[in-house]
Amino acid sequence: MAKAVKLAIIGAGSAQFSIDMVRDICLAEDLAGSEVALMDIDEGRLEMVLEVARRYAAEMGADLRIEKTMEREVALRDADFVLNTAMPGGHDLTETERSLTERHGYYRGVHPANRYRCLDLMMEVARDIERLCPEAWLIQSGNPVFDGCTLMTRRTGVKVIGLCHGHYGYHEIVRMLGLELDHVTFEAPGFNHCIWMTHFRYKGEDAYPLIDRWIDEESEKYWETYHPHYGQTQMSPAAIHMYKFYGLMPIGDAPRALWSDVWWYQLSPESKKRWWGPEGGFDSAEGWELYLADLERNLGRIREVAQDPQRRATDVFPPEKSGEQVVPIINSLVNDRPGEYQVNVPNRGALAGIPDDVVVEVPAIIDGKGIRPLAVGALPERIMLGVMWPRWLQMERGLAAYLTGDRRYLMQSLLHDHRTRTWEQAEEVLGALMAMPHNAQPARHFGLKA
Amino acid sequence: MAKAVKLAIIGAGSAQFSIDMVRDICLAEDLAGSEVALMDIDEGRLEMVLEVARRYAAEMGADLRIEKTMEREVALRDADFVLNTAMPGGHDLTETERSLTERHGYYRGVHPANRYRCLDLMMEVARDIERLCPEAWLIQSGNPVFDGCTLMTRRTGVKVIGLCHGHYGYHEIVRMLGLELDHVTFEAPGFNHCIWMTHFRYKGEDAYPLIDRWIDEESEKYWETYHPHYGQTQMSPAAIHMYKFYGLMPIGDAPRALWSDVWWYQLSPESKKRWWGPEGGFDSAEGWELYLADLERNLGRIREVAQDPQRRATDVFPPEKSGEQVVPIINSLVNDRPGEYQVNVPNRGALAGIPDDVVVEVPAIIDGKGIRPLAVGALPERIMLGVMWPRWLQMERGLAAYLTGDRRYLMQSLLHDHRTRTWEQAEEVLGALMAMPHNAQPARHFGLKA
Repeated sequence: MAKAVKLAIIGAGSAQFSIDMVRDICLAEDLAGSEVALMDIDEGRLEMVLEVARRYAAEMGADLRIEKTMEREVALRDADFVLNTAMPGGHDLTETERSLTERHGYYRGVHPANRYRCLDLMMEVARDIERLCPEAWLIQSGNPVFDGCTLMTRRTGVKVIGLCHGHYGYHEIVRMLGLELDHVTFEAPGFNHCIWMTHFRYKGEDAYPLIDRWIDEESEKYWETYHPHYGQTQMSPAAIHMYKFYGLMPIGDAPRALWSDVWWYQLSPESKKRWWGPEGGFDSAEGWELYLADLERNLGRIREVAQDPQRRATDVFPPEKSGEQVVPIINSLVNDRPGEYQVNVPNRGALAGIPDDVVVEVPAIIDGKGIRPLAVGALPERIMLGVMWPRWLQMERGLAAYLTGDRRYLMQSLLHDHRTRTWEQAEEVLGALMAMPHNAQPARHFGLKA
Repeated sequence: MAKAVKLAIIGAGSAQFSIDMVRDICLAEDLAGSEVALMDIDEGRLEMVLEVARRYAAEMGADLRIEKTMEREVALRDADFVLNTAMPGGHDLTETERSLTERHGYYRGVHPANRYRCLDLMMEVARDIERLCPEAWLIQSGNPVFDGCTLMTRRTGVKVIGLCHGHYGYHEIVRMLGLELDHVTFEAPGFNHCIWMTHFRYKGEDAYPLIDRWIDEESEKYWETYHPHYGQTQMSPAAIHMYKFYGLMPIGDAPRALWSDVWWYQLSPESKKRWWGPEGGFDSAEGWELYLADLERNLGRIREVAQDPQRRATDVFPPEKSGEQVVPIINSLVNDRPGEYQVNVPNRGALAGIPDDVVVEVPAIIDGKGIRPLAVGALPERIMLGVMWPRWLQMERGLAAYLTGDRRYLMQSLLHDHRTRTWEQAEEVLGALMAMPHNAQPARHFGLKA
């Protein structure tokens, strides 16, 4: 007899993601009888998502109860799983802060205030879970997953799983090489947004030579007409250059990194265009606009369904699995359905050379016993020295800033940023950012004038 | 009955240092009957040093045999101690490479070829010791002490002690505060050239408040007329700024660091002048000229003595202990005279948070039992995150480059340098440097055209 669950979604106004979750639960027969609590502070969004989600479940004939609330406590009470997708302040605030900090010489901005908000909200949610539903699993998909999951697992007793779909970037490699996905085996451990393909085989044979051949014979032609959708960074000149430099393919979001060795791809609009095609990739001004427009478009589709009772939700969102790992992992855990997933959990030896209390992204077997990460060995030294350890230090500086309120850690982060040219520049951008009215709380935290 | 030793000095053409060693041995009665083998590849310098050293010992009536050789094997055979002061290529080569690399946008130059030469010579000497005098202690005073001692202790079985006089920088603090040195206790662990004063007491009381008072009441006045000798960086605006930022005083060469958080003090001549006074400190063009001129002046004094048989060496170099730790350490080891020294040895737990196989600079008790480092605990997190771990990574990149011959590690070092603005700049400076005729060997090693 399969077990049902209560899933609380914090930040359920991330409309597309919430609909995906509902869709996946409707398709998971094992989870019949479950309950989803949609929680957000944006009432309008919440109403809209609730309307579509309920109609979706009804059309599917699914045994699923869906509620909404603006009170986190209500959502968390008796929850078995808490999915935190929240992005405090949303994209608007990020863009405002980006504009301001760009004027201080930081192309594409710096985001210490945003990091403070995100970490602070994560800790609030985790502490509420400790109080209200201490046995619940917290599934963290809101960013920064690496930093936040490390913080929460160090400072609370909550069972945390960080999830991201970045590792699916290898599907793009498979597609470009013309392989059948079913015959591909793959492994790419690291930190979230910093994973490296240590294993890539096709029908039992090492498939890296196929990438090498693609680079030699097809990449130049491909890049001539390369006009990628903002998200397709996987076979970009930047990713291939990183592969040659580090010896392994960076997967998903890894080629977008701004820290450590790889800052120089991103230092200017010209450089972005050279390394990620005409739009400059995901993180250029143009690429990011496309991304935000896509989010708006998705939201628009959901709004249309919500506003038109005649529209069938299942026509707009066909009943197919979303590909997100959240619901399959829930089912694996509560109904003992073994599966291999890509998760972010405290290391405890899974990835050699990284401290135990740092969250790593590794494959794990999940079933009724819980989450058992697979010990994948070590990444090559060039990747550790060039990227992994510098990224680890960057994370630690951010957590130390958050935990101590000592703004000197914020300065350290900025001084390690290649866009910083002088001490004064770093001090000024920090002062200006924290003087924004909405940043009164972090400004107090760091002893800076709001 | 005290034991005599054979001390081989590799790079004995470092004339002042060699004379200091002879002077110290002459003053160490325990070491009567000892032998010093002066070895260098510069025959003229060697003759000069031998002449002065022998006359010095004779004037002192010391029971000391002094020989010279241009064959390293001859010097090492039967040696009990090997002092390696060698600087392959000398200052001239460094200056040539500095000029070239400055033209590529690296103010004050980059020195990967020099690092290669230094590490390679250290390893040659260490391997010769393994073969010819495996029981000998190797005292490494030629730079880079941190990188080289880590390399040699990892890759050979030789007993290595790295020495530096940087920690005496605290004498300058004591002098500025008007304290009596005899009543000061002090501790400053870290890596060589990156040490931090964790303990500073005067007559049993914490003396850091005296520094704070000096900063509040006297520093501005001092800096108004601050026209320091190139070496006096200890109370510079840079050092005090670092103290405020990190929470502990950086000692000796630590404020001169160019890596990690602290690159920006050094990015331009203007910045150097602001932070180290009118000459821009030790590492500015002017400061370094003064340093080189000082070396020449010392050399001139020794040459004068050598050329004038009527001059008494002991008049020019009064029979006082040099203050160098080398001879006292030798005496502690062979004649069981316990003493506390500041040494560079593999960590093995002495400094918390640093891997065991990394060489740290820590206090150690040295006597007939050998070298026992004192476990000094941990440095504050802000120092670890901002300086120590980044410096550790920089060292590891350099060793990986040397050991693998993979020039991508050299690129990683350059890409982590804040003076690098583009990938091409780093590639070009590396190509130009390795194309210098004298760099044929490193060029081959790194697969670059010479």
